[in-house]
Amino acid sequence: MKISMSHGAGGEVMQGLISDIILGNLNNKQVNGGVGLDSLDDGATIPLGDYEIVVSTDSHTVNPIFFPGGDIGKISIAGTVNDVSMMGAKPLAITNAMVVSEGFSGEDFERIIKSMDEVCREVGVSIVTGDTKVMENDKLDSIIISTTGIGIAKRGQITRDSNLEVGNKIILTGSVGDHGISLMSYREGFGFETDLKSDVAPVWSMVEAALEVGGVKAMKDPTRGGIANALNELAEKSGVGMLLDEEKIPIKKEVHAASEMLGIDPYEVANEGKVIMGVEADKAEEILQAVRKTKYGKDAQIIGEVTNDKHVILETALGGKRILEAPIADPVPRVC
Amino acid sequence: MKISMSHGAGGEVMQGLISDIILGNLNNKQVNGGVGLDSLDDGATIPLGDYEIVVSTDSHTVNPIFFPGGDIGKISIAGTVNDVSMMGAKPLAITNAMVVSEGFSGEDFERIIKSMDEVCREVGVSIVTGDTKVMENDKLDSIIISTTGIGIAKRGQITRDSNLEVGNKIILTGSVGDHGISLMSYREGFGFETDLKSDVAPVWSMVEAALEVGGVKAMKDPTRGGIANALNELAEKSGVGMLLDEEKIPIKKEVHAASEMLGIDPYEVANEGKVIMGVEADKAEEILQAVRKTKYGKDAQIIGEVTNDKHVILETALGGKRILEAPIADPVPRVC
Repeated sequence: MKISMSHGAGGEVMQGLISDIILGNLNNKQVNGGVGLDSLDDGATIPLGDYEIVVSTDSHTVNPIFFPGGDIGKISIAGTVNDVSMMGAKPLAITNAMVVSEGFSGEDFERIIKSMDEVCREVGVSIVTGDTKVMENDKLDSIIISTTGIGIAKRGQITRDSNLEVGNKIILTGSVGDHGISLMSYREGFGFETDLKSDVAPVWSMVEAALEVGGVKAMKDPTRGGIANALNELAEKSGVGMLLDEEKIPIKKEVHAASEMLGIDPYEVANEGKVIMGVEADKAEEILQAVRKTKYGKDAQIIGEVTNDKHVILETALGGKRILEAPIADPVPRVC
Repeated sequence: MKISMSHGAGGEVMQGLISDIILGNLNNKQVNGGVGLDSLDDGATIPLGDYEIVVSTDSHTVNPIFFPGGDIGKISIAGTVNDVSMMGAKPLAITNAMVVSEGFSGEDFERIIKSMDEVCREVGVSIVTGDTKVMENDKLDSIIISTTGIGIAKRGQITRDSNLEVGNKIILTGSVGDHGISLMSYREGFGFETDLKSDVAPVWSMVEAALEVGGVKAMKDPTRGGIANALNELAEKSGVGMLLDEEKIPIKKEVHAASEMLGIDPYEVANEGKVIMGVEADKAEEILQAVRKTKYGKDAQIIGEVTNDKHVILETALGGKRILEAPIADPVPRVC
């Protein structure tokens, strides 16, 4: 068997690879009864005294490394901060392992580091340790940044992605498809790239606002595979369904236009600054208002609710219903 | 400025790159007063309640990925466990981010995962979370594994690499150069590879035995840049010198022979299963015996002591003295 690109796309084929080879061959997958690898959550937890240490890791290979709205440095820090945030933990520290190809521009390298610093300062996290390696340029093109985030939550206050209950409301914190569609448009050089940019941003401020209200049951940031993947994963892990009002799902005019032109479903591409939250119904409005007051949350919407169905169902403006499936493979590779 | 291979070799040029670009452009480099990025230690610490969380990260790009004595999976887990151990913390958890090239063999992938599992079971650490991405094979050759280790120590019981004091004894836990010289011989196909193999192994059992005795002042695992780099780093950070008895430095006959043939100094190449410990003089013999009783420590030696000189000085069998300098660049790239 040869590993193919579709394995890396966050879709079902990838899930199979992860399950079969990695999970099947590892014996030690959790520590002290915390959330471990088998959960395939956004991160893991290590219970320690009155706390839970939350860790999450990602290798970033985005292409191109500089794009409208951000770069690989910004996406590395924001993406890792976001995964820690999804577990309900305050992000504190980042480790940063970089592999750079021989001949890589020192100026570009510096620009990436500055970009990482900017996000760190915004969120209040620190890059506490790192590693830098150089690889021959016939072995690696460009740069790979692997970041691990460490966050802390009070014992027992972790948010799991499998915790949705029937009747919970689903909040989406902003417009969908911005990252994936803008990168794809930029790569294809369609010329409308000035209107479109990535939404890459740290979501902690939105999460913190929601956690302060209380009643957050489950969260996921819809990165690889887009909201189609994230919504289905939340539903599947919690053993529930969803009924969503398609008209409530925010989507930018330019993203809609570009996705039609590209023939790509904006629900299936990565977002890098959004959160899907499942919240208790009686707290939903208060959480929505709290999220809307934050820097990145002004377009947040309650898009539907959790049902005891087994599917994620979209209800269209005309009252039609369709099942939103998880994508088999990401239509836009290497955007995060 | 273009980044060149010598930047990645753990020598002085690399140190300059790290200092100038990374440290110079990052503002947030530590958390809660713990050991942070500026220390350039083996890892960082995050003080939390009665504990210190220790984290360390590395991207592994070893070439070839399978070699006598180990593979990239074994080196990834052992290397990260070892860095956490160097801080005096018990390794608990690993995060595992892998980037694999399209077309990579599924069988090789499985073999690597099994190898990781073996080291995890030996040490008692768990892989708690991970990420797997596939990259086009014209952008990446082979596989890159980025592991982050999380360990725990009691508050205030961290071992720093800057803590040596004049009069401390220096313990080296076994023979030098095995990893770097065996990989280089294997790559060159000299045909004597059956006698030579990498020493890649988790060193926690040796460290634990030493910590139980007490009196360990500073530790470093001599990976990139070999013992020449590690000894100088320990001395420089502590503001001391060393006087070492060259005859006491264990080196295998085959390593000696191969390094002569290759023209490579075995003191300057990576080891992957050794520790240099600076210990209180009155505990040195007891620590030595404790280390020798462990699986990987039977050849341990007290190789010298800490002086108030500013250099690391080797005393030869004939009584001659020479300064052991830190290498400018690793003579054997991509061995760890």
